[in-house]
Amino acid sequence: MSKSYKISIIGAGNLSWHLAPALEAAGHLVKEIYSRDISKATTITSRLYHAVPKDDLDFSASESNVFILSISDNSIKEVAGQLQLPKNVFVAHTSGTTDIDTLEKFENTAVLYPLQTFSKSRKIAFTQVPICLEAGNEVSRQVFEQIAQSISRDIRYLDSEKRKGLHLAAVFACNFTNHLLGIASHILQCEDLPSNILHAIISETINKAMETNPFDVQTGPAVRDDRNTIAAHLHMLADIPEFGAIYRAISESIQEYSSDQKNED
Amino acid sequence: MSKSYKISIIGAGNLSWHLAPALEAAGHLVKEIYSRDISKATTITSRLYHAVPKDDLDFSASESNVFILSISDNSIKEVAGQLQLPKNVFVAHTSGTTDIDTLEKFENTAVLYPLQTFSKSRKIAFTQVPICLEAGNEVSRQVFEQIAQSISRDIRYLDSEKRKGLHLAAVFACNFTNHLLGIASHILQCEDLPSNILHAIISETINKAMETNPFDVQTGPAVRDDRNTIAAHLHMLADIPEFGAIYRAISESIQEYSSDQKNED
Repeated sequence: MSKSYKISIIGAGNLSWHLAPALEAAGHLVKEIYSRDISKATTITSRLYHAVPKDDLDFSASESNVFILSISDNSIKEVAGQLQLPKNVFVAHTSGTTDIDTLEKFENTAVLYPLQTFSKSRKIAFTQVPICLEAGNEVSRQVFEQIAQSISRDIRYLDSEKRKGLHLAAVFACNFTNHLLGIASHILQCEDLPSNILHAIISETINKAMETNPFDVQTGPAVRDDRNTIAAHLHMLADIPEFGAIYRAISESIQEYSSDQKNED
Repeated sequence: MSKSYKISIIGAGNLSWHLAPALEAAGHLVKEIYSRDISKATTITSRLYHAVPKDDLDFSASESNVFILSISDNSIKEVAGQLQLPKNVFVAHTSGTTDIDTLEKFENTAVLYPLQTFSKSRKIAFTQVPICLEAGNEVSRQVFEQIAQSISRDIRYLDSEKRKGLHLAAVFACNFTNHLLGIASHILQCEDLPSNILHAIISETINKAMETNPFDVQTGPAVRDDRNTIAAHLHMLADIPEFGAIYRAISESIQEYSSDQKNED
């Protein structure tokens, strides 16, 4: 059994919801969950063995030796500023896009960025979530490496610059892809078609893209420079200018980056 | 065993590559494969039992009673104009975006649109490919329904208008999604990161989106209105204006269509 830590988690969002039980399952003691809204903290402590909810940031009397900030990117600086911790503890945030220096008022810092999208309603196998690690000093690296390895089998060391690049890539591959699937669903609804009609082609598209360079297997009207179809599609989108703007921007980018390829559908 | 037809396929692209053997496996006789480039036709006939390659569009002496145009959308009109067929035959095209009327010079017409993305290198289980059917008359409907049912278990009747909507939805969900995954790979390459680091989060994103309305589970900086992160990302993309334009267009659309939701990552 690996080393066990006493851990407090600052934040009660979807990541905390999954992370806290995973830490307990790995043998750590989750002592406290903080949220400005104590009822949100309670929804998580109620899933745990000994943790108590907290709604103030004064942890100076805490027994924990590890503190994990699992809050939205744009709150980290402010919360870190107000957070009061015992001496000689270890502090990490979990943001893909936030520099480790945002925690610079603390002595032993790290970033522990789990590269997954978390929803309360969906079970996640934490052992398969890639955890991207960065540490401010060697002893922090050892502590958070032990913690990361206790919950996941996929640990990667990335500095803040590389992690920001990775986060940007994930925004395109996941956040933006989700929106495109939403647009597709919206169009199907307008035509009174069931959204499952697209499931087979979506799965095949994604599986194919993950096995190769997606630019090399691009299909569709843009890469064929099929102007009649592109014009017809833009006409169909005339009432929804946001979708038309996306159609134009992606089609132009496809023609720039995949135009050597003339794959047939 | 369902009724067997003698079939010729006009076109030797990726769809023909998969469709011709599927038709043979279902008991039909594939007689001819046409391509302007006879060597392309031969790559397909060499996979078949009795089919011969052809590079001219005069099929007036053909023994086939069914002709399937499996060519790029913008060639259908021209090829249909030049195509010479025996009397009393059945003709379909396979395009999602082309009106059935494009075949109006023929008497018995249909559209047989297989909703899948085809590559020669990837095996497709044709029985699970949704086939969207439209027919110009009742006898054509019966013939192509028999053919469709012989190769797939998922047949849907859609008129040209609905099929065009479906095709547009597929462009967003598949062609455009593939390009976003290509951008993500490109960014990872620039950071010297392996593309498989994103596979777990991509799979979870897609699975989640297919189980719900994607607009309701949107995550990321745009839906959180996290302006610092958005500005940082646009700064990182400053050298690649096409990707920056996509980032802006999708972020604005997310804020319009998912801004009521403040999901946490």
